[in-house]
Amino acid sequence: MPLQPGRTVEELRELRAFTGDENGAQRVCWTPTWGEARDWFRAKLAELPVDVEQDEAGNLWATLPGDSSRAVLVGGHLDSVENGGWLDGCLNTVAALEVLRRVAGEGRPPVTVRLVDWADEEGFRFGRSLFGSSAAAGSLAPDDFRGLRDPDGVALPGALADFGVDLDRALDATRQLADAAAYLELHIEQGPVLEHLGVPLGVVLGTYGVERHTVRFVGQRAHVGAAPMSLRRDSVAGAARFVLEGRQIALEAGSVTTVGVIDTPGGIVTAVAPACELVFDQRHLEPDRLARMVADAKAASDRIASEEQLSVEWAPQWRIEPRPFDPQLIELAAEAVQEVAGEVHRMPSGALHDAAEVAGAGVPSVMLFVQSLGGLSHNKDEDTRPEDLELAVEALDRLAAKTIYGLAGRREA
Amino acid sequence: MPLQPGRTVEELRELRAFTGDENGAQRVCWTPTWGEARDWFRAKLAELPVDVEQDEAGNLWATLPGDSSRAVLVGGHLDSVENGGWLDGCLNTVAALEVLRRVAGEGRPPVTVRLVDWADEEGFRFGRSLFGSSAAAGSLAPDDFRGLRDPDGVALPGALADFGVDLDRALDATRQLADAAAYLELHIEQGPVLEHLGVPLGVVLGTYGVERHTVRFVGQRAHVGAAPMSLRRDSVAGAARFVLEGRQIALEAGSVTTVGVIDTPGGIVTAVAPACELVFDQRHLEPDRLARMVADAKAASDRIASEEQLSVEWAPQWRIEPRPFDPQLIELAAEAVQEVAGEVHRMPSGALHDAAEVAGAGVPSVMLFVQSLGGLSHNKDEDTRPEDLELAVEALDRLAAKTIYGLAGRREA
Repeated sequence: MPLQPGRTVEELRELRAFTGDENGAQRVCWTPTWGEARDWFRAKLAELPVDVEQDEAGNLWATLPGDSSRAVLVGGHLDSVENGGWLDGCLNTVAALEVLRRVAGEGRPPVTVRLVDWADEEGFRFGRSLFGSSAAAGSLAPDDFRGLRDPDGVALPGALADFGVDLDRALDATRQLADAAAYLELHIEQGPVLEHLGVPLGVVLGTYGVERHTVRFVGQRAHVGAAPMSLRRDSVAGAARFVLEGRQIALEAGSVTTVGVIDTPGGIVTAVAPACELVFDQRHLEPDRLARMVADAKAASDRIASEEQLSVEWAPQWRIEPRPFDPQLIELAAEAVQEVAGEVHRMPSGALHDAAEVAGAGVPSVMLFVQSLGGLSHNKDEDTRPEDLELAVEALDRLAAKTIYGLAGRREA
Repeated sequence: MPLQPGRTVEELRELRAFTGDENGAQRVCWTPTWGEARDWFRAKLAELPVDVEQDEAGNLWATLPGDSSRAVLVGGHLDSVENGGWLDGCLNTVAALEVLRRVAGEGRPPVTVRLVDWADEEGFRFGRSLFGSSAAAGSLAPDDFRGLRDPDGVALPGALADFGVDLDRALDATRQLADAAAYLELHIEQGPVLEHLGVPLGVVLGTYGVERHTVRFVGQRAHVGAAPMSLRRDSVAGAARFVLEGRQIALEAGSVTTVGVIDTPGGIVTAVAPACELVFDQRHLEPDRLARMVADAKAASDRIASEEQLSVEWAPQWRIEPRPFDPQLIELAAEAVQEVAGEVHRMPSGALHDAAEVAGAGVPSVMLFVQSLGGLSHNKDEDTRPEDLELAVEALDRLAAKTIYGLAGRREA
């Protein structure tokens, strides 16, 4: 049967109707509402000639067997944050259902096509994200999750057991990627770029690497009136200079850097602040450029500290490698987007996605972004125009078709 | 009898021995230890031909009658903060005792000479400073003090009553300034300037006026990865620019400005901070220059907010007028310092003192500063070299002599 992109929009509204409320989407993983979303989705899959299974990590797989066991995966996540958006994650899962209908309607495909609904991408209930995809990728460390508890004190292992998942067997899900030849994921942008450019769709080049540090400038407390400017060791002045130089380093690298938190521990209004501390988050798509951003910022902080007669300390807080996507799949994605939208914007993803885990496991991967109105995310006001959602479904379908036939061509060659 | 500056140092050590402990000075006003310090001081005064009285605000006065009722006042405060320094306040009170001895030893002076020990300069126990001097100056509002309680819940009026002070009669102390022709005060610098310059004594030009505001930059929360730098409305970047421009405005005005507290309310490490708030304290000795500093900073904040696509709000937090000292007394003080130390540094006082209240009441006033080691203040490690303390006593005595004879000269002219 031909692709019906409008049906995807209708089905997303259907899902919203029974899993959302006045505060937004409530499809938090390992909760009854998420289970209901899964049941609804299983019922849709039951109408197709696919094998459906939940794996050891709680991921749901629908497999349409092809002439080759090499598989094209199309993935997303039905789960949301609390009070989340209606499209975040499930757009792709529901769009992939429509793609699967179209492919299945054309008979047995040359390669296997698999839809995956990853478990707990958001990590909202237990505070740790990418559970299912990191299990399949083999990067999950069960001990990092074992002690987690939700705000009510419920331990993660018990909550997973309620959904038939045994934490100690989660890594068995790695078998799912054994035959994977490509991974495709469509997601809302969660940022303002496509709307600002006035284009509906983007091709994602990879997910940013992140280097996050706490940077602390230490000076000396001094009376605000009695200490002349020339004799001060002012931690706030040092931090202010660093914030601005850090921004400049990001601009020159064509990337992003953020100070989302800054404060003066022990600071009082009548004294020069003895210490000013900030969280410094640097991101880049290329590992060497990211490393250079960090080195440049450290050098800047040392120079500023010296000039302001301060000391400065860096403490690592979090890091992740950049995850560049597959160049050939990026080109296929660009062709698909060009065909349906007439223009293509290539962009990095600042946020993490399941695709980063899959790419990290060595599976050639790519993502499509569709414009988010106002760049809003993790919020009940998150939205995308229906006509853009339909274009996104078309683009994902064309990308899937190109990937399937490309793999078949390579196999035949 | 001739002036014995070394005796002042000995008496200060005597006072420290019974009013301090391993954590520093404990002469907190309206406490038994402060009462003991007063008793000790009264015993010293009893050896002189002076009239001693405690006024309605708890200030202690020792009056050496002269040919004229016009009076030269020499003032300080025996009270300290908790865990304070051994010299803060009492240096002047004890030095003035030595001056009074010298003057009394020379017979009846041409004008009246009065020593005052102000009550509760520090305001440590109830959190409001300058009680006694503001009562004498007539600027005290009893209702501002009536509801104050110490950390144990004791109300201020009751604590004052224990020392014979009735809050509702405190303003009767204004009579003390009726015949005042000059007010002289010696204090430790509580800052690093004199030590940095390598000079023992300074002449104070007045106390800074203060304009303290909360300044809040408001932007928009955005994902640290998904929002490109060019589309951000980053409150921290705006605040950082403002901190540095605020410092530049102070440098150009030859004065001081401090951001002792900065934070990002509601900020998280994974989002551009929607708001950044700081406390902005500007000081200057001249009212019009201070007003211009505030206007310049407001203009800078508006320009920065506009360039960064932020909004900015100013909320007043505290202000006090500059209190310039008397030009003629400043010249006499400079002569006295030049004679005993061979060099003079003229400087503003960033901290408030009782002299600011007395000057505000229209009494010609001036202060001398003596070097503080390390610029330390309100701290058990506060200290000044004994030889500098002796120079300070000599300078105060010469200033008193010049003022007495100057007034007598003027009277005779």
